[in-house]
Amino acid sequence: MNTNTLSDRLEGSALPINRLGLPETVCLRDGQLYLLDQTVLPHEVVAVRQTSVRQVFDSIQRLVVRGAPAIGIAAAYGMLVDLEDFQNASPDTFDDEIRRRGQYLRTSRPTAVNLMWAIDRMLDGLNQPVESSGQRIEQLSSLAAEIHREDRELCRRIGMAGQDLIPAGGGVLTHCNAGSLATSEFGTATSPMYVAHQAGVQFKVWVDETRPLLQGGRLTAWELHRCGIDARLITDNMSASIMASGQVDLVIVGADRVAMNGDFANKIGTLGVAILARHFGIPLYVAVPYSTLDRQLADGSAIPIEQRDASEVRGYRDCQWAPADVAVANPAFDVTPGGLVAGFITENGIVQPPFDV
Amino acid sequence: MNTNTLSDRLEGSALPINRLGLPETVCLRDGQLYLLDQTVLPHEVVAVRQTSVRQVFDSIQRLVVRGAPAIGIAAAYGMLVDLEDFQNASPDTFDDEIRRRGQYLRTSRPTAVNLMWAIDRMLDGLNQPVESSGQRIEQLSSLAAEIHREDRELCRRIGMAGQDLIPAGGGVLTHCNAGSLATSEFGTATSPMYVAHQAGVQFKVWVDETRPLLQGGRLTAWELHRCGIDARLITDNMSASIMASGQVDLVIVGADRVAMNGDFANKIGTLGVAILARHFGIPLYVAVPYSTLDRQLADGSAIPIEQRDASEVRGYRDCQWAPADVAVANPAFDVTPGGLVAGFITENGIVQPPFDV
Repeated sequence: MNTNTLSDRLEGSALPINRLGLPETVCLRDGQLYLLDQTVLPHEVVAVRQTSVRQVFDSIQRLVVRGAPAIGIAAAYGMLVDLEDFQNASPDTFDDEIRRRGQYLRTSRPTAVNLMWAIDRMLDGLNQPVESSGQRIEQLSSLAAEIHREDRELCRRIGMAGQDLIPAGGGVLTHCNAGSLATSEFGTATSPMYVAHQAGVQFKVWVDETRPLLQGGRLTAWELHRCGIDARLITDNMSASIMASGQVDLVIVGADRVAMNGDFANKIGTLGVAILARHFGIPLYVAVPYSTLDRQLADGSAIPIEQRDASEVRGYRDCQWAPADVAVANPAFDVTPGGLVAGFITENGIVQPPFDV
Repeated sequence: MNTNTLSDRLEGSALPINRLGLPETVCLRDGQLYLLDQTVLPHEVVAVRQTSVRQVFDSIQRLVVRGAPAIGIAAAYGMLVDLEDFQNASPDTFDDEIRRRGQYLRTSRPTAVNLMWAIDRMLDGLNQPVESSGQRIEQLSSLAAEIHREDRELCRRIGMAGQDLIPAGGGVLTHCNAGSLATSEFGTATSPMYVAHQAGVQFKVWVDETRPLLQGGRLTAWELHRCGIDARLITDNMSASIMASGQVDLVIVGADRVAMNGDFANKIGTLGVAILARHFGIPLYVAVPYSTLDRQLADGSAIPIEQRDASEVRGYRDCQWAPADVAVANPAFDVTPGGLVAGFITENGIVQPPFDV
């Protein structure tokens, strides 16, 4: 196929839409990989074609694509873009190139567990013997599509497991974006909300804006509102007041990593929400696929916390409001004790530590 | 005096400096009223001359001057600007003009208790008989200066009362700006910090940025850092994580209104900080002058909460990051139960409800 005739950007009616009516976060169109550009949401809704592995690397690093499952899926497909020069290479040469790409993409976000998992799974695929590079491409393309399809299914099952928790006529609070944009379709924390919404349940969702990077204000508010869910955006420091007013019946958040005692790491601010929920007697659920449970981790004390750049706290992008020379702390995650969690909503139902893994 | 020769703006070495080395929030220079423009801090440090009562009104409304005590002081002086046309009027005509100005400035921020208090005090001054408008100007100028001097003294005494709470080598957390910029000099919540710092005590201050208007990130971080205090700026949702790490020994906040049972209204987010502090066993103190204690108020349930514009939550000024059509809650204040307060730091020492008023 002459790739010059393909669109570099998909917009408006050209955007592939998922079962929620949202643009696909990661998608193939005409055999080409497109990533919904989350750095320009919600003001622009555009998917950008990935024409090189280097571009995929850059897209992961610049958070064009973000959210653990979505990054994994993007990397799996991303290992296979721009292979024209290798189509006639020997299978060994071809496989070496795939390994090189895996190693390279691994370094785009070194702390992302799903990224490593998806790349490992693609590399494991190389153990299956093939007769030609063309056959290998076909096999690995199927594998990437399978990773994608599985995530779709996992998210959907998390929603089915959690939907009965959603209070009809009540309020749910969520933090950060563990939504459609972070995954392939229903999201994790948002999945019970989407499933309940599709079943006709009416409820409000309080969306923490989630400073410093504002994933709640930019992404969760956008996707819930676009799906017709009654989303109410608040600054992070308003959640106590909203809880005190009796308008929150349930908190659902995602997690980046869950220890065997239920301690979990998630976006900075989750710990505070969990403590407030406990104070007000509101149950907090963590929505995660089983792959997020880390059986090597007895508790949360050993989870390393990434410290990010000070400019993120001094402002937002070009809008810098704090003194440039004031010191800043910028931990990207915090660890919430398992004791504050009412349950873990997984693809296998609502479960409790120490889990069945 | 020919006011045309006066500077409309004081900057750099022309700025009047207080005992902390900070520019005066409200000041007279050559008989003219200047307000430090808090809308352009920290990027520009400039005091703007107020040449009309209308300009003073506008400065209060646009938050050029903010913080309950500072607004009151600005209004007291503000009633006396641009009086040239009335200098030769009869005392009765003159007094009517002062009353008209008081009524007008009262409407600039209707919920500001100190504003009403300062204007009432100036109007009470009209009960003292005078022989000429010139004498009235002199008398009211002294009264405004007295209100200013008293606030300076009150703040300083709050600092003396609270300085021993500051943990040498430890950490203090504060929310919003109850600092020098909100008052005439030492501030309320910041005063124990300034007094301890002047006494050579070393400590860190964690500064919540205080969304949506970022008074912590723009103002508190600036004034503490400028005075040489080790300030560390964080987003509001990081306080739980910093407390969990053992780096906070004490929380001090200000208050807009305190009920007789100790319930108090303060900037949105204070309630969350108070609950987190209780969870981690960290004492929370509220620094307020006695004038903030409201003897008409048995508890906090009757305190009305101002709801502000949605655009403040969807972004910050021109930088709007959330979808323009998503619903928003924007309560400006919350009410913290008195049971979460370790003590009230006042000009008369550290006191407890029901107070001695």
